[in-house]
Amino acid sequence: MTKPTSLADFRFDPESGSDYIDAAFVAIEITRLLREGDSKAVAEFLESQELADVAAYLEELETPDAMTAVRLLPLHDQAEVIGYLRPSSQLTMATQMTRRELARLMSAMSHDERADLYKVLDPEVQAAILPALSQAEREDLRRLAAYDEATVGSVMTSDYATLGPEMTATQAIEALRAQAMEAETVYTAYIVDEARKLIGVVSLRDLLMARPRQRVADIMDTEPVWVRASAEQEEAARLIARYDLIALPVLDDADQLVGIVTADDAMDVAEDETTEDIHKSGLVGPFETSVAEATIAVLYKARIYWLVLLVFGNIFSGAGIAYFEDTIAAHLSLLFFLPLLIASGGNAGTQSATLMVRALATGDVRPADFGRLLGRETVIALALGLTMAAAVAVIGVWRGGPEIAVVVSLAMIAIVLMGALIGMSLPFIFARIDRDPAAASGPLVTSIADVMGVLIYFGIATALLGL
Amino acid sequence: MTKPTSLADFRFDPESGSDYIDAAFVAIEITRLLREGDSKAVAEFLESQELADVAAYLEELETPDAMTAVRLLPLHDQAEVIGYLRPSSQLTMATQMTRRELARLMSAMSHDERADLYKVLDPEVQAAILPALSQAEREDLRRLAAYDEATVGSVMTSDYATLGPEMTATQAIEALRAQAMEAETVYTAYIVDEARKLIGVVSLRDLLMARPRQRVADIMDTEPVWVRASAEQEEAARLIARYDLIALPVLDDADQLVGIVTADDAMDVAEDETTEDIHKSGLVGPFETSVAEATIAVLYKARIYWLVLLVFGNIFSGAGIAYFEDTIAAHLSLLFFLPLLIASGGNAGTQSATLMVRALATGDVRPADFGRLLGRETVIALALGLTMAAAVAVIGVWRGGPEIAVVVSLAMIAIVLMGALIGMSLPFIFARIDRDPAAASGPLVTSIADVMGVLIYFGIATALLGL
Repeated sequence: MTKPTSLADFRFDPESGSDYIDAAFVAIEITRLLREGDSKAVAEFLESQELADVAAYLEELETPDAMTAVRLLPLHDQAEVIGYLRPSSQLTMATQMTRRELARLMSAMSHDERADLYKVLDPEVQAAILPALSQAEREDLRRLAAYDEATVGSVMTSDYATLGPEMTATQAIEALRAQAMEAETVYTAYIVDEARKLIGVVSLRDLLMARPRQRVADIMDTEPVWVRASAEQEEAARLIARYDLIALPVLDDADQLVGIVTADDAMDVAEDETTEDIHKSGLVGPFETSVAEATIAVLYKARIYWLVLLVFGNIFSGAGIAYFEDTIAAHLSLLFFLPLLIASGGNAGTQSATLMVRALATGDVRPADFGRLLGRETVIALALGLTMAAAVAVIGVWRGGPEIAVVVSLAMIAIVLMGALIGMSLPFIFARIDRDPAAASGPLVTSIADVMGVLIYFGIATALLGL
Repeated sequence: MTKPTSLADFRFDPESGSDYIDAAFVAIEITRLLREGDSKAVAEFLESQELADVAAYLEELETPDAMTAVRLLPLHDQAEVIGYLRPSSQLTMATQMTRRELARLMSAMSHDERADLYKVLDPEVQAAILPALSQAEREDLRRLAAYDEATVGSVMTSDYATLGPEMTATQAIEALRAQAMEAETVYTAYIVDEARKLIGVVSLRDLLMARPRQRVADIMDTEPVWVRASAEQEEAARLIARYDLIALPVLDDADQLVGIVTADDAMDVAEDETTEDIHKSGLVGPFETSVAEATIAVLYKARIYWLVLLVFGNIFSGAGIAYFEDTIAAHLSLLFFLPLLIASGGNAGTQSATLMVRALATGDVRPADFGRLLGRETVIALALGLTMAAAVAVIGVWRGGPEIAVVVSLAMIAIVLMGALIGMSLPFIFARIDRDPAAASGPLVTSIADVMGVLIYFGIATALLGL
């Protein structure tokens, strides 16, 4: 595709690169048009675009231009676009609005995104906004905003569609039509009793396929999948993925229906969860904001813990080396192989731990499978160790003669086997003692494998070279 | 929750643990009931369960019992359950069926899952099945099965709902009602012209909200988001996540509509993609099957490459140490700090690389942000290095005196800074030269940081200790 030279050429094109849109280019064009006073062209362009892309353009604009641009959209689109912005951009725009404008916008937002926006506002703005909202909106906002971060309650929304059990399929579809403007989804509807307890779930598809006079109570699923509002948010994502749901009902501790989690929000939760797991395996602790927006202090705090902890872990490796100082002094050529042997144990261990941590996370492997997998891992590790021993034997002969080659080869086999078995076992041990297996990857494994590697290498050397 | 003692007590309960269901317990009960000849109880139980769970029970049953159990389900449920099974279990069950039974089942399956099942069958079974299918099914099967693994075509399905542009909203809803049994989803429908080119997409929600006589052509989105069949499958997952879609239309190279990718299949693709990225960062190459099902040979091949490559990388570290043998021989106490300093550079580098690789993958950070982030990273790395230098200075004084303490502290600052900057830069360099940034994590960074660490440490020592 050729690069667009004006907004008129600008089309969604998945083959133009992985960014889909050149937001920076669009932002420059929008700025130019706005400065020229041609807000009609901007409005037409924005209306032709997906709202997720409009949000990307707004992120690139100067704040006054972004405010002008967003006000060109119909209120309903404004409300949706705001939900796509980064929290810091949401805050910037919200503080540029009058209280009345902000309240009008918040009334139009979906309930979960409204609560998320509310949470990033300054306390004074929060207090100023509440009186401008309706009684129902205020209560809804307070309720949703009250859930702890990381719980299902903090990601659910309360604008779900409800039906009565006595309605016919035709009446139910009519009822969904009436709720379609407000509800987050009409493809799944919820049936509650007088106490707001969930008694069933029905899909719009099943309503369409039913006979027109069939009652909702006879069509609905009376034992639907659900989740507790106080559960961890990943639980909702896991249930939605497992049961291929469009939305998942959320119950409070009294079993009352309080909200739903939609599949698209679940995908976001799953992505955040994966990011946290990946960070953990890369020695980075959890932090709230995105990497792009994190401050120096936040990143320092997320990183220093493991770095210092591992320094102390490596003191044992140093002590191991110091213990064998006589052997080393007598055979300084042994040092050449030290990094290579130590690193191999850690690398093999990292591989095993990575495979097991991820398989446990996705459910591909269960804690009970440990015994069965241990045998396979032993065979694989021996095969890997033998291959690598053959490689280093050649280097051993060349650098230090046949004796050193034997020491290095034997050490390689033992170290790779040791590293792989530690790396494989640790995630299972963590799962058994109810800790997150992800914490068992990289850091701990390499640290333990380092110490063991030093002891194995110089132990074998001391024994075979006769000191 | 107390443990259920019979199938009658067995309810979906998200609070009973992260497995939701004790599939092994259920399998024992089902086996017992089947052996007692009470297949009615089994049928009733299975019908009360979610199909994803039924699949989990089948995985735990002996093959003959699994065959008996699956045959108790209505054909439509059988077809869906098969799609949830592991490929190896699908194959086992398929080979137990008569050709007629298998063909009947495949006719009832959704088109994408049918093609997936077809692909795992032995060539003779494939050839035997084809004549038992209808002409249209055969062609559809051949077309879907022909797409390369890892392309959008290999994960799309062809059973999408279509509408005519001239239909009224009421007629369109009627048309969707007629297609509801067969189509993968009726919540999004596609409008094509005579040449099967996609001219619009409309959601059932918009049809519900439209005036009854409004024409589809006036409601539909005429510039929908789409993806090419030959694109990488992750592309479909990324688009669905970005635009919060229920399904994404897929076009062939002639711009004809050939299928859709649904959000639930996209979630599976995203999970597989993440697994591959995590494996890559843990030194494990790509392989086709799941970890649980992979053979020894497959895992050996996926692991040996990086292990051997890094051995050769570490030879440079060994050579660095060998180069400074005189310094080491004069100050053997320097060896105590070697593992700790080297590991710190690799660890800091791993952190930086992990943060950047993930941020680039999620789009949180763009390649253009490099300059802006470099300054922040430098400050963070200096802060981390200073903290760690303070920690090792104490140990340095204790183990080797003040001179060693100065060497070790200076080396720590320099090594952490070097590791962090390499770890941060490498993913950006890879992105710039159009390689996957994920390959820049862990392995390469640690390897480079190891060599540099050896040179920095003994370089500083040689200079300051006056050799």
